[in-house]
Amino acid sequence: MAKRRYDVVVVGGGPAGVTAALSAQNTYPEKSIALIRREEVALIPCGIPYVLHTLAGVDDDIMPDQPLKSKGIDIIVDTVEGRDGDVLLMERSGKISFDRLVLATGSVPFVPPIPGIDLDGVYFVRKQRPYLEKLKDAVSEARKVVVIGGGFIGVEVVDELVKAGKQVTLIEKLPHLLPLAMDPEFGDMVQEELKGMGVEVRVGESVKEITGNGKVDGVLVEDGTRIPADLVIVSAGYRPNIELARKLGLEYDERYGVIVDEYLRTSDRRMFAVGDCAAKKHFFTGEFSKIMLASTAMAEGRLAGSNLFSIKVVRKYPGVLGSFSTKVGEVAFGVSGITETAARDLGIDYIVGTAETVDRHPGRLPGASKVYVKLLFARYSHVLLGAQVRGGDSVGEMVNMFATMILGKMTDMDIDVLQIGTHPLLTPSPIVYPVINATVSAILKWYNQGKGSG
Amino acid sequence: MAKRRYDVVVVGGGPAGVTAALSAQNTYPEKSIALIRREEVALIPCGIPYVLHTLAGVDDDIMPDQPLKSKGIDIIVDTVEGRDGDVLLMERSGKISFDRLVLATGSVPFVPPIPGIDLDGVYFVRKQRPYLEKLKDAVSEARKVVVIGGGFIGVEVVDELVKAGKQVTLIEKLPHLLPLAMDPEFGDMVQEELKGMGVEVRVGESVKEITGNGKVDGVLVEDGTRIPADLVIVSAGYRPNIELARKLGLEYDERYGVIVDEYLRTSDRRMFAVGDCAAKKHFFTGEFSKIMLASTAMAEGRLAGSNLFSIKVVRKYPGVLGSFSTKVGEVAFGVSGITETAARDLGIDYIVGTAETVDRHPGRLPGASKVYVKLLFARYSHVLLGAQVRGGDSVGEMVNMFATMILGKMTDMDIDVLQIGTHPLLTPSPIVYPVINATVSAILKWYNQGKGSG
Repeated sequence: MAKRRYDVVVVGGGPAGVTAALSAQNTYPEKSIALIRREEVALIPCGIPYVLHTLAGVDDDIMPDQPLKSKGIDIIVDTVEGRDGDVLLMERSGKISFDRLVLATGSVPFVPPIPGIDLDGVYFVRKQRPYLEKLKDAVSEARKVVVIGGGFIGVEVVDELVKAGKQVTLIEKLPHLLPLAMDPEFGDMVQEELKGMGVEVRVGESVKEITGNGKVDGVLVEDGTRIPADLVIVSAGYRPNIELARKLGLEYDERYGVIVDEYLRTSDRRMFAVGDCAAKKHFFTGEFSKIMLASTAMAEGRLAGSNLFSIKVVRKYPGVLGSFSTKVGEVAFGVSGITETAARDLGIDYIVGTAETVDRHPGRLPGASKVYVKLLFARYSHVLLGAQVRGGDSVGEMVNMFATMILGKMTDMDIDVLQIGTHPLLTPSPIVYPVINATVSAILKWYNQGKGSG
Repeated sequence: MAKRRYDVVVVGGGPAGVTAALSAQNTYPEKSIALIRREEVALIPCGIPYVLHTLAGVDDDIMPDQPLKSKGIDIIVDTVEGRDGDVLLMERSGKISFDRLVLATGSVPFVPPIPGIDLDGVYFVRKQRPYLEKLKDAVSEARKVVVIGGGFIGVEVVDELVKAGKQVTLIEKLPHLLPLAMDPEFGDMVQEELKGMGVEVRVGESVKEITGNGKVDGVLVEDGTRIPADLVIVSAGYRPNIELARKLGLEYDERYGVIVDEYLRTSDRRMFAVGDCAAKKHFFTGEFSKIMLASTAMAEGRLAGSNLFSIKVVRKYPGVLGSFSTKVGEVAFGVSGITETAARDLGIDYIVGTAETVDRHPGRLPGASKVYVKLLFARYSHVLLGAQVRGGDSVGEMVNMFATMILGKMTDMDIDVLQIGTHPLLTPSPIVYPVINATVSAILKWYNQGKGSG
């Protein structure tokens, strides 16, 4: 039974909101807490591409409410229409007052201004159950699918469509796949994987028009080629959902989201914003960043939840690092920190180290995959700036090791003497451990350079 | 063709020696370097258990010489008998003089004083190819095998023997498996796995005698039980091989190895010792440690190799951390830093956090394994002291993340806001990511404790 007044109200049921609510409950167990969300159920956002084929249905991707309920956090399914002081005006459930408010309203797909984008049979990767059920039905009926946008989500959707037996074309307007996330050579490896799976990949091509009479029948690209399609899925990025922030009168930036300080407080100190809806600053430069990730959202949720009533965790939010991983076919890809492309854009002077090996030792052992690691170090301070990896399933946790190294400001010298653990059936050999060997290759570069210059 | 004089001579062809030679060549490319080893070929030490079944033969576990040869490092197969000043006296190849010497003579199996240990059919886990070929033959002919010693090597050997279809009994004299490496609950999980595979595990039992008339026919335990066996494999730990250090007149400790300073220099500054033969000090306490690991050996090899002629890498060796992983059946286990048992022994005040989940999200996705994480934090300084994990194959890289966290002196607050990357097909859900959730559970303990005490 919803109350009329809560100490803490969280708006938004995704990872950021759930984490903020749980963190608030952990830190302030005596406070009353409510989580308001629009949808009957909340989905695990990163699992959404996999409802298209690997998971039996959308319901297999529901985020359980039990962690919230078991902690006494009320869940209210409704929409906030506005506020009057510290009272939220709800669409259906009247008024709810709060002492602290956390906005976790997430993001919405960007709708590119392409003629025909409103046709029947054109879908986006949204996060609502009913929408995704319709999309899943559309996929099961389709034979030829065009996916527009070759970022992580687009690539994962393509991977699923291929597994579901569809004939798939992927169109990316920049010259490489994963153009904002990884360096060109990694994007090209992803492209090779997809081509090997039978996908037609068209990079460096813009969509001129989505064609059809009421219902989509194809996609016309700039060079005049017409690609027949009975389904088009558009994955052209996300934009912060700042609709509620606007209603509440908080400061926001249309492109980057609700403006927050280093403790995730908005322009009104009793209100916090976390996750995709909150503007983020880059870990290395402090500039606005467009990175949106569930894991970043949750780090923000935990920090905000702990500090709602006083700053208990005295740690400024260091800015968004950006750590992610994905899998295409049988190959995993991951990145943490900045890429070489980003370093160049940001004007950062760097040295690159790379190493390639297999992730079992000897490599004849079962389950071995090739691993390729690329590390970026700051040229003079020697700290690790970014890491990219292609390999087997352990790429997922390697990315978290990279995040730990970067956040901990580790240098090449620290990594050189890192006391790793290795095992024949689980990791590369210690002698060729690629994180260390890529570091050594970077060290040799500046070492030899130093000699060259006298 | 071996020369009569080298700038750098490394003695020992294992991971420590190879790494020291390569690191020396990287740092001092103008120096002449030789690696002397006794054996015609060097084996990958951690791969040795897997020659018994998973690998077709011992030759599949050979460490390639190509990395050394391609860098112009000479390999000399011979034994050092002694020295005269800076001249090594060789068994077969006369005299070789050096400017810097690196000892990497490794370790030898401990031979426990059990009656019958010299019988035919009693083997140790040695590192020489001819010996291991005999052992592999003995395994293929055996039906009933008793393994004495339930540490990592013993457990891995048992795992292989079961896969080879043998009837196996494992005897460990301490009350839990992996008694020196992991906490009792993890040792018990390993025991459950092995039991499920049909192994008879006997913990808390000492071997009174190995019986047989010339050839082994069984093992007699303290309580009088007689276990029939046509093969006994003893894995009761390793001791540093200090034979050469003694001949060279260097300081050593019989149990812990050659005494070295924080740059791995022995009592003679032109001579270094790295790897299992070098005495190690504990990362947290500075006390002598008996941990012997290829990965630690290589961190030492890299540091020594860089600093042979001057201290180029100004970083004191921080002591041995101990990071390792293994796999039993389909379950992987790993640890970095100190266990709860060790913390108690060392008199360290700590708080434990634990978390359990599955390593895919949603957990219905293919390849999901249960993951259980246990973390130890220092009660007042809040730094991470140690981590243990049971899970799927990604445990291997999780251990390296833990090592990074501990070496970087990360606190619970740092890990709480760690910006991890997660992916449905590769990692647990960000909401239940066990490293963070175990950390949160530890934070809640001291938080609530603080409240309890006012």
